[in-house]
Amino acid sequence: MVFFTQDDIDNLISEDVPYFDLTSSLLDIDTIPGKITYSTRDATVVCCVEEVERIMHRFGLKIISNTSSGKFLDKDVLFLEASGPASYLHVIWKVTQNILEYSSGIATRTYKMVKAAREVNPDTVVVTTRKHFPGSKKLCIKGIIAGGAMPHRLGISETILIFRQHMNFIGGVKSLLDKISDIKKRIPEKKITVEVESIEDAIMMAKKGVDIIQFDKLSPDEIKKSVPSIKQCGDQIKIAAAGGVNLANIKEYVEAGSDIIVLSSAYFGKPADIKVRLTPLGDKDER
Amino acid sequence: MVFFTQDDIDNLISEDVPYFDLTSSLLDIDTIPGKITYSTRDATVVCCVEEVERIMHRFGLKIISNTSSGKFLDKDVLFLEASGPASYLHVIWKVTQNILEYSSGIATRTYKMVKAAREVNPDTVVVTTRKHFPGSKKLCIKGIIAGGAMPHRLGISETILIFRQHMNFIGGVKSLLDKISDIKKRIPEKKITVEVESIEDAIMMAKKGVDIIQFDKLSPDEIKKSVPSIKQCGDQIKIAAAGGVNLANIKEYVEAGSDIIVLSSAYFGKPADIKVRLTPLGDKDER
Amino acid sequence: MVFFTQDDIDNLISEDVPYFDLTSSLLDIDTIPGKITYSTRDATVVCCVEEVERIMHRFGLKIISNTSSGKFLDKDVLFLEASGPASYLHVIWKVTQNILEYSSGIATRTYKMVKAAREVNPDTVVVTTRKHFPGSKKLCIKGIIAGGAMPHRLGISETILIFRQHMNFIGGVKSLLDKISDIKKRIPEKKITVEVESIEDAIMMAKKGVDIIQFDKLSPDEIKKSVPSIKQCGDQIKIAAAGGVNLANIKEYVEAGSDIIVLSSAYFGKPADIKVRLTPLGDKDER
Amino acid sequence: MVFFTQDDIDNLISEDVPYFDLTSSLLDIDTIPGKITYSTRDATVVCCVEEVERIMHRFGLKIISNTSSGKFLDKDVLFLEASGPASYLHVIWKVTQNILEYSSGIATRTYKMVKAAREVNPDTVVVTTRKHFPGSKKLCIKGIIAGGAMPHRLGISETILIFRQHMNFIGGVKSLLDKISDIKKRIPEKKITVEVESIEDAIMMAKKGVDIIQFDKLSPDEIKKSVPSIKQCGDQIKIAAAGGVNLANIKEYVEAGSDIIVLSSAYFGKPADIKVRLTPLGDKDER
Amino acid sequence: MVFFTQDDIDNLISEDVPYFDLTSSLLDIDTIPGKITYSTRDATVVCCVEEVERIMHRFGLKIISNTSSGKFLDKDVLFLEASGPASYLHVIWKVTQNILEYSSGIATRTYKMVKAAREVNPDTVVVTTRKHFPGSKKLCIKGIIAGGAMPHRLGISETILIFRQHMNFIGGVKSLLDKISDIKKRIPEKKITVEVESIEDAIMMAKKGVDIIQFDKLSPDEIKKSVPSIKQCGDQIKIAAAGGVNLANIKEYVEAGSDIIVLSSAYFGKPADIKVRLTPLGDKDER
Amino acid sequence: MVFFTQDDIDNLISEDVPYFDLTSSLLDIDTIPGKITYSTRDATVVCCVEEVERIMHRFGLKIISNTSSGKFLDKDVLFLEASGPASYLHVIWKVTQNILEYSSGIATRTYKMVKAAREVNPDTVVVTTRKHFPGSKKLCIKGIIAGGAMPHRLGISETILIFRQHMNFIGGVKSLLDKISDIKKRIPEKKITVEVESIEDAIMMAKKGVDIIQFDKLSPDEIKKSVPSIKQCGDQIKIAAAGGVNLANIKEYVEAGSDIIVLSSAYFGKPADIKVRLTPLGDKDER
Repeated sequence: MVFFTQDDIDNLISEDVPYFDLTSSLLDIDTIPGKITYSTRDATVVCCVEEVERIMHRFGLKIISNTSSGKFLDKDVLFLEASGPASYLHVIWKVTQNILEYSSGIATRTYKMVKAAREVNPDTVVVTTRKHFPGSKKLCIKGIIAGGAMPHRLGISETILIFRQHMNFIGGVKSLLDKISDIKKRIPEKKITVEVESIEDAIMMAKKGVDIIQFDKLSPDEIKKSVPSIKQCGDQIKIAAAGGVNLANIKEYVEAGSDIIVLSSAYFGKPADIKVRLTPLGDKDER
Repeated sequence: MVFFTQDDIDNLISEDVPYFDLTSSLLDIDTIPGKITYSTRDATVVCCVEEVERIMHRFGLKIISNTSSGKFLDKDVLFLEASGPASYLHVIWKVTQNILEYSSGIATRTYKMVKAAREVNPDTVVVTTRKHFPGSKKLCIKGIIAGGAMPHRLGISETILIFRQHMNFIGGVKSLLDKISDIKKRIPEKKITVEVESIEDAIMMAKKGVDIIQFDKLSPDEIKKSVPSIKQCGDQIKIAAAGGVNLANIKEYVEAGSDIIVLSSAYFGKPADIKVRLTPLGDKDER
Repeated sequence: MVFFTQDDIDNLISEDVPYFDLTSSLLDIDTIPGKITYSTRDATVVCCVEEVERIMHRFGLKIISNTSSGKFLDKDVLFLEASGPASYLHVIWKVTQNILEYSSGIATRTYKMVKAAREVNPDTVVVTTRKHFPGSKKLCIKGIIAGGAMPHRLGISETILIFRQHMNFIGGVKSLLDKISDIKKRIPEKKITVEVESIEDAIMMAKKGVDIIQFDKLSPDEIKKSVPSIKQCGDQIKIAAAGGVNLANIKEYVEAGSDIIVLSSAYFGKPADIKVRLTPLGDKDER
Repeated sequence: MVFFTQDDIDNLISEDVPYFDLTSSLLDIDTIPGKITYSTRDATVVCCVEEVERIMHRFGLKIISNTSSGKFLDKDVLFLEASGPASYLHVIWKVTQNILEYSSGIATRTYKMVKAAREVNPDTVVVTTRKHFPGSKKLCIKGIIAGGAMPHRLGISETILIFRQHMNFIGGVKSLLDKISDIKKRIPEKKITVEVESIEDAIMMAKKGVDIIQFDKLSPDEIKKSVPSIKQCGDQIKIAAAGGVNLANIKEYVEAGSDIIVLSSAYFGKPADIKVRLTPLGDKDER
Repeated sequence: MVFFTQDDIDNLISEDVPYFDLTSSLLDIDTIPGKITYSTRDATVVCCVEEVERIMHRFGLKIISNTSSGKFLDKDVLFLEASGPASYLHVIWKVTQNILEYSSGIATRTYKMVKAAREVNPDTVVVTTRKHFPGSKKLCIKGIIAGGAMPHRLGISETILIFRQHMNFIGGVKSLLDKISDIKKRIPEKKITVEVESIEDAIMMAKKGVDIIQFDKLSPDEIKKSVPSIKQCGDQIKIAAAGGVNLANIKEYVEAGSDIIVLSSAYFGKPADIKVRLTPLGDKDER
Repeated sequence: MVFFTQDDIDNLISEDVPYFDLTSSLLDIDTIPGKITYSTRDATVVCCVEEVERIMHRFGLKIISNTSSGKFLDKDVLFLEASGPASYLHVIWKVTQNILEYSSGIATRTYKMVKAAREVNPDTVVVTTRKHFPGSKKLCIKGIIAGGAMPHRLGISETILIFRQHMNFIGGVKSLLDKISDIKKRIPEKKITVEVESIEDAIMMAKKGVDIIQFDKLSPDEIKKSVPSIKQCGDQIKIAAAGGVNLANIKEYVEAGSDIIVLSSAYFGKPADIKVRLTPLGDKDER
């Protein structure tokens, strides 16, 4: 469940339907009763079905059958069906297809990576970065949750993640080490994550009590080498691998000993392929 | 130029910064003067520089140098630079990087496809579908225009595009043929596009005066076969190829004789890789 | 059907009801069950009934009877009726009356002009300019569609209409002639309209393949004189008459041979006169 | 001064420019420096110049000269001028013209009626009803204030105006009379206005201490007859004439002895005619 | 009844639930059917029950029992109860509790002051200033109305209240006296209130026909002394006491002869204490 | 720094100024140049100065002097001063005063409690609950940060806080104990807080590895008794005291050994008293 406001829903509709549907109105099909169906073309984790249903309700369509976001479906499964006048079926057609395809694409990519990671270590946690499509964060977050991941950070107001770009302003890694215990004292309700680019830095941070060591763009091998020394500093310290993780290499990162996989690659890529059919009620033809 | 409202800009910021920057505030770096620079890591058509500048102005940053959206840049080119207090540099960092990377990714993919198409036929027109990321239409549209394409339709209120899904409601292709001349009479300011899935349908539509024949998911070979018969119906009739066109096959579709290439593939894929550095003013270090 | 967002509807209400209804609350009539009825005082094409119903639903009123936007009604026809507590009936009273009166005024004026035009030539198309009331475009567009017209352009992002004000920047009419074929090539999915102020310019444009010649503020006589020469350049070229067309002169413009009538006069003028009565349930009195 | 939010301004722009300016971009005139000028074609009270300037600033245009809303200008007076790149001049052209024409139309009609009324009685107060264009209230209110009137009520939350439609729910005029003193006690900071349709009702209300007697659709003659009896009940009681007042009959209503003229006719009617010219900088041509 | 837009409601939810409920989702309790109940812990005038119900409807919860805003309830009274899945009960929990507690706190404080005032003089009118919590005006206004007060002014656009800060710009109290009759003439539909800080000024204003004399921060004794002289100027002149009125001193201000009590103290103070329980359906435990 | 959107700022203005300033316009003072000054009446931590400055810039006022949010000021210190036309000074007067008074009230109460707590233990952390004024969260959060506290949770999407109301759905405290290690595994980037109402529960939770034990409404004495046993389970476990903490008792809660003080009382109470003066430029008078 991700909360979409009415404004979120209406804006999605307005992008495609600023005023009305010119083509349908010229064809004089407005009041013909019809049906719209949505089916998978490939194995898919469907997402945003609930938001599509809200759009359907907006136009008075009747939901005949549906499923829940997060469900894994085989190919060629009809998972959503609604009826109503042809005018409204055409109005919602592409908007709803687009929402389903993009969010299910994210969910399915996430699902595959989570599955791959857990085949190696069932306790691995997959989280996604803030590199979501700008302007579409709720849809992206719903997608990755539906696929079995969690957001790494929802924004910069509630988590502490210290980057090299921060250290540049305090005098480098060394100066940060001097500050860690103070930061921990000031914000005892949060864990402290530091992104590092070398094993040496990682170990120094771990010794200072940093909760999560995040490696940026290290190879699985490099991470593997660092794990024992870090875990020696405290078993509760978590190792996160970030930077370029994708379906092709995620298993290696898990095998290397990462507790947490931080990735962006779930967000982008081809949308899921959802087949949508609009037919008059009673019609037998299949497209 | 795509018009972003202040609300569009503020919403992009709020996605990442709902309240404040927790990490920076804990590091006590708020008022240190610094600089942010953006450079390409690959050859890139940059996009949404203007929107990033508006975000910078919002926080009182000073633009030192910049470039325009739509510019093709080689790799390792610094194209945007601004200065201001560290707190604001960190606040805008990821938001602006995200906007640049996603929109420039779209622009660069578009650019490559347009270039490929025009190498075959310099008069080919590349247009993009409504399958943009839901909720981020302005950014997607700005991206494809920056890359040299145009939108196929900006929504369903101003263009006529008749799909099989419409014909289902009027009794099929034959019934549509009977209606074409009436539709043309009723909407003389617009061209009529019909999407067809076979050469036979295409020729019948062309004979009835349809302005643009859009082939959905036909192979380049099939399109090639249909061109002479269609053009015979009128030289001004345009042939559009849609459905699965991408960088790998676009040349074949142009060679087949398509006047217009309709594609969605520019919208999705990996964001451009933009290197962002934040440093204190006067700092010499390179990351 | 024009899509109004929930925000559109709520803003219409808030204009008149920022907080509550002071008068009704002082009269202690809040919970008395009552009825609200809307009738025409003149022959009227009613409009925005659906939006008024949404406002009624917002306050939990029960619709007893209604009609559809676009219906032509004789005078003294009751076309909408709802019941609910007196407080809510009074809250929605003037807002709903205002919406109905303004949009039905536009619809009725449009209807009369379309009717007049088609008495001369049943194939004439009436379209309306962008000179709608600023801030109320959806209501204006719904009004003219209800009256039988179509929008000329919904905005400047999807159509090509070249004015003298554009030519000023490219070196005048002659320079435009040199560019026409290039523009047509670049945007093959759209028709090109050029607004001209003389017959000479019209003929030159027609020869270059402009799709629609729009005359600005020419007299019907002048247009009449130009028609044969323009149609000689191509039977598919359309002639649009714009600038000062209204109910008094529209027939002359159609008789002159205009294919398309472009007008703004439908937007402004007296709102329709809708009689609204609020009575307690069971009450026999007529006002 | 009426307060327009940034959202108000941006929405006005977005109505006409949802994305970009297609025509200008095809003409490749984007960066040519130019000038836009606005002049009256008739004697006009100009309005919303400040809002137009905000739109100009939005696009970085430079204001060369301007005037203030509420100024009475003769015909053929240039009152606003700005410069900037051709692309932005064309983007703002029609939006700004529309805002100026509609609001100045309201201001000018108001001005004429106020002037006419005050020629008869310089103390007459002209106020306008809530029958403004739905969705454009701020622009309408700015218009009538610029023309010399004031709003009768800005909404239903802060004033007391009792209509027949209220009396229907409390048992008619008689029951209202019994409640007047109670209402006055409960809301001592407001004046009480009652709308009546007969002289008898007016006198009864005046006797009970109603502050303002508003006559709905009475003729000037009928009002004239009632004035002495009402004023006898208290010199401070004001008489308002409402319902169908316009430029043709306003003087008669003032002569009849109305203290306050309540009208809607200022809101609708033909927009003012503002001539707008766009030219390249340095250009000598006059259109 | 105060009109909250859908946006108002959605924004209240979004403040607490920007995306989803992390805790509930980790506990895997999402679909367990449960119940939420709200009870008073002290005698309370409850408020914003209707808005809480709208939030409940938003998430598909079923209202089992409720009461109306403005109702005085003893302590330990269950006044609202709803059922639905545990996930949604937890999502709405704190948001709804917060809304009820703050608005009922305002309503209850208002109620106590109105009651105290009317024990001295049943005709006293209590009104509240514009010093509401910034950003939450509707909730504050609903609270004070529920408690029996009315807003003094809903904003600065519809009432006339002249402060010392205005007089500073016209040359002081004397200059204002010269303008009063002109202002009354220009705005005959409104009462004129002037805030004064001395008895002398009060009497001068009263003589000039000011409708309401508002004393700022005078002691009850000082007000008492001024009443006879003011009332001598006209029995209809109202005396308003403003500045520091609260539950401890309100009776003295009424006894002093104030007709109207203007206060801000209802807005701030401890929220009402509302006990909220969430339990699985069928559960017997009391917390 | 808390990020307020332009919409946030404009909405604050619109609450008080829906259209225009009636009083000022009737006094004809619009264009008189003047000055507005803001001073403390008591020792105050000022807040939201930056937002007030944005409002001033909105109306073209010139800032003469200012200070930063979070500054502790003695009584009678002038901390903000601006100049501009009288009309705009009056328009912003009460809006800006309200924003400053409410947010500075929160900041000052927070400051006092933080100071008191740190006098006992300088490492104590004070955080505030989600019980902020509904609809005004940003202003509340800015207030408590200015006063030296931090938000406990910014919403329910990014933190884990398990209440009794959650345990009701999983079978009580015991069942939660069984789930703790699983939750920790699933969400390794976050700390787990559990709110308990008894010492026994606290110890059981501590043994299971809960990061923060939050006591709800326990007395300082009870907390004191539990501290040693909890800390024995792990020195890194933090003890948070919540429920009824205020300036009167905060020291006792710190003395009891709480690491974190969770409170709501900073949010409500009397706004700070800010003296605002508006005077014509050059004026010598002091109010």
